[in-house]
Amino acid sequence: MKTETTIQGLNAALAPARIARKTIGFVATMGNLHQGHLNLVREAKKLCDLVVVSIFVNPIQFGPNEDFDNYPRTLEADSHLLADVGCDVLFAPTVQQMYGDQERKTKVSVHGITEILCGQSRPGHFDGVATVVTKLFNIVQPNIAFFGQKDWQQLAIIRAMTRDLNFFIDIVGVPITRAEDGLALSSRNAYLTAEQRQVAPVIYQALTTAQQQLQQHIDLQQVLAQIDLTLVNAGFVVDYVKAYTPDLLPVTQFDQDIVLFIAAKLGSTRLIDNLLVKFSD
Amino acid sequence: MKTETTIQGLNAALAPARIARKTIGFVATMGNLHQGHLNLVREAKKLCDLVVVSIFVNPIQFGPNEDFDNYPRTLEADSHLLADVGCDVLFAPTVQQMYGDQERKTKVSVHGITEILCGQSRPGHFDGVATVVTKLFNIVQPNIAFFGQKDWQQLAIIRAMTRDLNFFIDIVGVPITRAEDGLALSSRNAYLTAEQRQVAPVIYQALTTAQQQLQQHIDLQQVLAQIDLTLVNAGFVVDYVKAYTPDLLPVTQFDQDIVLFIAAKLGSTRLIDNLLVKFSD
Repeated sequence: MKTETTIQGLNAALAPARIARKTIGFVATMGNLHQGHLNLVREAKKLCDLVVVSIFVNPIQFGPNEDFDNYPRTLEADSHLLADVGCDVLFAPTVQQMYGDQERKTKVSVHGITEILCGQSRPGHFDGVATVVTKLFNIVQPNIAFFGQKDWQQLAIIRAMTRDLNFFIDIVGVPITRAEDGLALSSRNAYLTAEQRQVAPVIYQALTTAQQQLQQHIDLQQVLAQIDLTLVNAGFVVDYVKAYTPDLLPVTQFDQDIVLFIAAKLGSTRLIDNLLVKFSD
Repeated sequence: MKTETTIQGLNAALAPARIARKTIGFVATMGNLHQGHLNLVREAKKLCDLVVVSIFVNPIQFGPNEDFDNYPRTLEADSHLLADVGCDVLFAPTVQQMYGDQERKTKVSVHGITEILCGQSRPGHFDGVATVVTKLFNIVQPNIAFFGQKDWQQLAIIRAMTRDLNFFIDIVGVPITRAEDGLALSSRNAYLTAEQRQVAPVIYQALTTAQQQLQQHIDLQQVLAQIDLTLVNAGFVVDYVKAYTPDLLPVTQFDQDIVLFIAAKLGSTRLIDNLLVKFSD
């Protein structure tokens, strides 16, 4: 595996693959990798000739009171994990390399689906994501990019952005990787105390219970209220419990596929999860 | 010259050039072409193996009270002019082809240099420009893109956007093409009455007089006031008379290069022009 820290270096590393018109796969991460990330890379390896993974803790997607400074940076461990799953090129730029010394003037924003869910409590977050992903798409110029379904809203935003801005890039959503007890893998799980870690799987349990109830045609609002209650009783502070269509539109029909979304805090650690409930087929 | 009206068609037309790694030049226009546009194409021909010109009247850069519906569409005449100067591929998509049927959610905006000058009287205009140019850059994937210095602010915005979003595209600014009497060529000149057309060159005369005065170290504010007076006396309604650095920063030093900017109306026709005044070298 090659590791490149500059855009110029990455370009040089990818030039032979571009000339040979190989299929380049791309996985954008903020590092502190777990099996969820590695499954994105494994999926990319299946579909692409060459896989690029970026590790970049992107300052502009963190709010002023969020954990940018304390976000875990574990490049050496990440690097070994990536090499083991067959990543071809690791791109690990500095903030200076990505944003330069001059004032940033340009922003990519996606309207309509950024204001709901995580956008409500994290204003500007998805503009920061859309902007850095646009930059990374232009730098890496992949054929296929892989994003986790754990950040379903982010995936929907990137799909909309890719379509609206005419990037010639296929976006592949990869299912959530879960611990044996159902907890969705996340870098932020490391912030949980042992006690909180015991409680955390309640999120997934509530989602699967809700899925069964919906398939038994119990009313959606009632099901959402039940999830909320379950979480509160387990000690969570609930940020949201919501249902949208897979494209993040409001649910209007009885029999359409929906995604259940949860964001809830255990202590100061905010966890998110989601589950697709299919009614079609 | 090939003419393509779909993104898929354009892709097919450019595929051999991409595989052969030829240098692709790009000129984005809204059609109704004059010698100013054709000089962009001539410049592109000098530096590139293959030149793509787009003709697309972009709805999202027009304000609600602007002339989108009445903007002149002269595709057949434009097509002949382009073929004559050696354009290789004309890309002339429909609005549907560029924006599709689904709601547009994504916007590219450039801050700091879009609010001044033409941005003041045309809110949202430069967001519309930045967004469509991002789309066209992704569709055409040129190596070099050519823009006229007549729209100096637009050129500065596209330079900032290209740098900030990491497009691997060289941006070349091409000097203003003028009529013999000095009037900057513009599609909007066609809206002028014969009488207004006689008056219009006063803009360029005022700019060149100001240039001489500045080089004689007459005070900038005094020079700008003199331009304003000259225009008003000639019958213009002045939108702005301003000076900025070439990068559109405020002028702070005595001896730095500046650009003089004018926007003024004759009747209902708004004309813009600018002139670089060099003090360096």
